[in-house]
Amino acid sequence: MSLIIKRLAVIGTGLIGGSFALALREAGAVEHIVGIDSDRSNLELALSMGLVDEIAEDACAGVSSAEVVFISVPVRSIAPVLASISAALPPGCIVTDGGSVKAAIVRECDALIPPGCSFVGGHPIAGTEHSGVAAAFPGLFRGKRSVLTPGATSDAQALDTVARLWAAAGAEVCRMEAGHHDRIFAEISHLPHAIAYTLVHAVGTADVEGENVLSYTAGGFRDFTRIASSDPVMWRDISLMNKQALLASIDGFTASLAELRRRIEGDDCDGLTEFFTTAKKFRDGIL
Amino acid sequence: MSLIIKRLAVIGTGLIGGSFALALREAGAVEHIVGIDSDRSNLELALSMGLVDEIAEDACAGVSSAEVVFISVPVRSIAPVLASISAALPPGCIVTDGGSVKAAIVRECDALIPPGCSFVGGHPIAGTEHSGVAAAFPGLFRGKRSVLTPGATSDAQALDTVARLWAAAGAEVCRMEAGHHDRIFAEISHLPHAIAYTLVHAVGTADVEGENVLSYTAGGFRDFTRIASSDPVMWRDISLMNKQALLASIDGFTASLAELRRRIEGDDCDGLTEFFTTAKKFRDGIL
Repeated sequence: MSLIIKRLAVIGTGLIGGSFALALREAGAVEHIVGIDSDRSNLELALSMGLVDEIAEDACAGVSSAEVVFISVPVRSIAPVLASISAALPPGCIVTDGGSVKAAIVRECDALIPPGCSFVGGHPIAGTEHSGVAAAFPGLFRGKRSVLTPGATSDAQALDTVARLWAAAGAEVCRMEAGHHDRIFAEISHLPHAIAYTLVHAVGTADVEGENVLSYTAGGFRDFTRIASSDPVMWRDISLMNKQALLASIDGFTASLAELRRRIEGDDCDGLTEFFTTAKKFRDGIL
Repeated sequence: MSLIIKRLAVIGTGLIGGSFALALREAGAVEHIVGIDSDRSNLELALSMGLVDEIAEDACAGVSSAEVVFISVPVRSIAPVLASISAALPPGCIVTDGGSVKAAIVRECDALIPPGCSFVGGHPIAGTEHSGVAAAFPGLFRGKRSVLTPGATSDAQALDTVARLWAAAGAEVCRMEAGHHDRIFAEISHLPHAIAYTLVHAVGTADVEGENVLSYTAGGFRDFTRIASSDPVMWRDISLMNKQALLASIDGFTASLAELRRRIEGDDCDGLTEFFTTAKKFRDGIL
């Protein structure tokens, strides 16, 4: 793999930012990586792991000679981080992110990016249940999709550079409009998380003659609800930042559940067979 | 382990019935096991696996000298099976089942069991995603709960015998009223299945600018929806047989989802943190 850029700055050297740095270094796609993180111990660990070449206490100093800045922080902090470094970005600098919500971030970052620089929204579809730099590994993105959602300030060359970096990290790159991204991920990721949290909430607060019904749960329930152990603040922020799409997905789900309820209440044997069989076919189709 | 009964008949030598036979044989709790199954090849496999000592083509002949009859067939067939053998049951015979719905089965079977015989409802909380006798193994119930729901025809000795058999199979036996069982399992098992099927149904039929959104799903969605690959007919029958409790559970879930929706729509940051944190605590508590 040949060099794509000389200098990369990674803001937020956690699981995603750290793995991105490791993957690009392993691929020989980047010469020098500066790490920036509000958590000093995380940052020092990143340096000692050889994940970055240099750490910067001051974010503005850290990005001042970067060709590409990758912002990998919680979704509600991405635009504020860009606001705090925008004055220090060198001419031609490309800023990209890894947030799992895109329309709001692209809109805010397009307004913040200085003239002559580019913002390219991104969302690598990868992760583990762990977080922090200690969990980072270079193969995290291998064979996974990375979605890029170009906006008003994404010039063709910037978009191409970011796409080549993700490809070098092992990801399959695809491009789509930010709002389209948000509607898709509302369905396949944000809705399932909302449903898992709601299920555990509903079952946990159910009053069945005063018994703790959760004590009867077995492996199936644990597996089904694993994603309800995710970080509540992260999911609060995603829910709020992708509000319109998520509300539409919740409404679609609610309508489907009401339809299932009608069929159960009406003893609609054929209707239930059809409902469950259709769902099973969808599920088996994604195996 | 000492002998509990001499002669057992198992009707339905699939995963549950077959594993029950294997576990009791391994424990030395039963001397002779007769296998009965509408699927002839399944039955012959059970015999060749040494799971049963004898197979009976005719169910009435098969149960005629049994001390205990274990009916392990789909929930809607349990009462019909009992109806078909009741005239052939020897005096003092104990009939028990393994269905995951209890109130309707206990009510129907209590009405069908002949005088001098006992029906004891049962539900072993165990299973795998596989079915059929080939998937049976003696350790299936080890360390799992087995719920017994005695009814009007469960005399104390019959209940004790069934409890000792499940304990010999390695299960932790607990007793509860059939309706209470159904309300608990509506929450922790039937509702989650209904939700998983509904989620896949809703996402699979969602129209996001004509794209097949399921093609974007990754491991998380697959894990979360695994139970929507279960047998549609089995879940249709469970839904219908535990209708009242399941409808109540669906209503509880729908109310929780509406509450979450209100908090998202109202940008209720604290309310969302509280909702997700409460759910996460419930989930982490069952680890």
